[in-house]
Amino acid sequence: MNIKNIVIASPMHEQIRRVIEKEELSYQFRYCSDDEVTQHDVNWADAFVSFNMKNDFDYGQLKWVHSLGAGVDRFLYRREWPENVLLTRTICSFGQRIGEYCLSYLLKDLQEHNRFHSLKKQKSWQPYTPGLLSEQRVMVFGTGEIGQKTAEILSSLGVEVHGVSLSGKQKRFFEEVVKVESCHARLSEMDYVINTLPLTEQTEGLFNEHIFNKLNRAGFINVGRGATVDEKALLHALNQHYVRFAVLDVFKEEPLPETHEFWEHPGIFITPHISAVTTPEEGAECFIDTLKNLENNQPLPNKVDVHKGF
Amino acid sequence: MNIKNIVIASPMHEQIRRVIEKEELSYQFRYCSDDEVTQHDVNWADAFVSFNMKNDFDYGQLKWVHSLGAGVDRFLYRREWPENVLLTRTICSFGQRIGEYCLSYLLKDLQEHNRFHSLKKQKSWQPYTPGLLSEQRVMVFGTGEIGQKTAEILSSLGVEVHGVSLSGKQKRFFEEVVKVESCHARLSEMDYVINTLPLTEQTEGLFNEHIFNKLNRAGFINVGRGATVDEKALLHALNQHYVRFAVLDVFKEEPLPETHEFWEHPGIFITPHISAVTTPEEGAECFIDTLKNLENNQPLPNKVDVHKGF
Repeated sequence: MNIKNIVIASPMHEQIRRVIEKEELSYQFRYCSDDEVTQHDVNWADAFVSFNMKNDFDYGQLKWVHSLGAGVDRFLYRREWPENVLLTRTICSFGQRIGEYCLSYLLKDLQEHNRFHSLKKQKSWQPYTPGLLSEQRVMVFGTGEIGQKTAEILSSLGVEVHGVSLSGKQKRFFEEVVKVESCHARLSEMDYVINTLPLTEQTEGLFNEHIFNKLNRAGFINVGRGATVDEKALLHALNQHYVRFAVLDVFKEEPLPETHEFWEHPGIFITPHISAVTTPEEGAECFIDTLKNLENNQPLPNKVDVHKGF
Repeated sequence: MNIKNIVIASPMHEQIRRVIEKEELSYQFRYCSDDEVTQHDVNWADAFVSFNMKNDFDYGQLKWVHSLGAGVDRFLYRREWPENVLLTRTICSFGQRIGEYCLSYLLKDLQEHNRFHSLKKQKSWQPYTPGLLSEQRVMVFGTGEIGQKTAEILSSLGVEVHGVSLSGKQKRFFEEVVKVESCHARLSEMDYVINTLPLTEQTEGLFNEHIFNKLNRAGFINVGRGATVDEKALLHALNQHYVRFAVLDVFKEEPLPETHEFWEHPGIFITPHISAVTTPEEGAECFIDTLKNLENNQPLPNKVDVHKGF
């Protein structure tokens, strides 16, 4: 692929520039924020690197688009992808980061951090035995890079991890992997359900009353995409105690609007889309690695299947 | 060893009885609470099983004492141990339990649970990138059963774990193990310090200003024994920010008195000695295993060196 001109459009373009300039690459770069990028920049470029694409721009003349995030719904979801344009995405420490995020909330729950925090305020000494990870069953939706790393971390600590994917293909670190349509049978046995799925036509609204109402006081963690969840169904399931608590890092609308009822629900923990952050260093490194692989005709492990959406 | 009569004196004697009676062992048992046990019971017994011993009782005619807890300071500390009486202690899931307890507080800190909890109350969306376990350095005091399992769990997740012990003997899962007197050199590099040491003449008050004031905003977790900590020195170090926060599961006096200033300190998390609970099932199983090993002249991995104190 003959790449000469590259546009980096990102809120962290200055930090990315610092990493790229150390490499002394023989390409022309333009760096700017998402707001500053113009159609003229895109026309000039062979490659475009960003977290986003604009709805009213024409990207059809590009050779390559690289997503600085792991999720590519902002590139593909409800958009016609221009044929012949390669799409790649960032793969770095996301799995480890999301695994540690999920583990932290399992342990917060098992070790009863809230209970002991309240008892401390009351100066009250009331022993209670924490639960062990080895006594827990978790269902992880999504068995890709991120879901599998999460399963690896949890299973290494004794958790029984069940996987759910579109294909149902068996993968390491999962007790078993089933297809989405077969997940319901075991939902009631799960202590926690973790969603790592991308947003595609098939996953939109997947977590609805048919899933939530089969849970038996489970904890629900969403580190995938907000639009995979039917918000009304989640609130209903929380209020009916099918879901004991929810930890949400992603939302249909981000930032979560100040008027949204999630903010005030006592059973919902909210984090502002921080479970899998692309640091400027990791984002730049993954882009440079992908560029080098491209120029040397090496395989691209981070190439996106634009029809599947991930 | 010729054992006929066994006294089980414990708050959970009823649950222990249920486990033991399933085994149909050919011994005479007496079950009672700690308060109910008499000198007459002790005189009748060949073996005594409890969390405690009374100061004014004579245990010199026993053949064997088995501690239901992992720590045996209540049996040995500032007490003359009767010669020829065997002392064993419970070894079960303590290491896993304490490892998960410690991990939960590292992750609570790294994943900024408190920050995001406060931001939720304010309905405020302010992204902040959590720290990774692989970026952390931890010093674990005590490299026995419990300290080593804690090191195994943390190092499996990428934490760099340094060990401190009386002997300084190298052990698996530790980057290195140093003697207590050599620990000071690296204290300032540690993100967290975990104490798993037993209470002995050598460890009493070990965590004093010479250790705390060398820390550089580290988190301190005590799952060993309360009396290993100089409480005034800890409070000073917290107020001077040498120690960023402390998680304390053990105290000089338990239950922690209502008037103790730890309750009100914002930098101290308090749990009521629950990090390594002996469940009735595990306590009974370890006692039965030890009894069988004794009668079959098998090695006793849980025999206490009464001179070392652990």
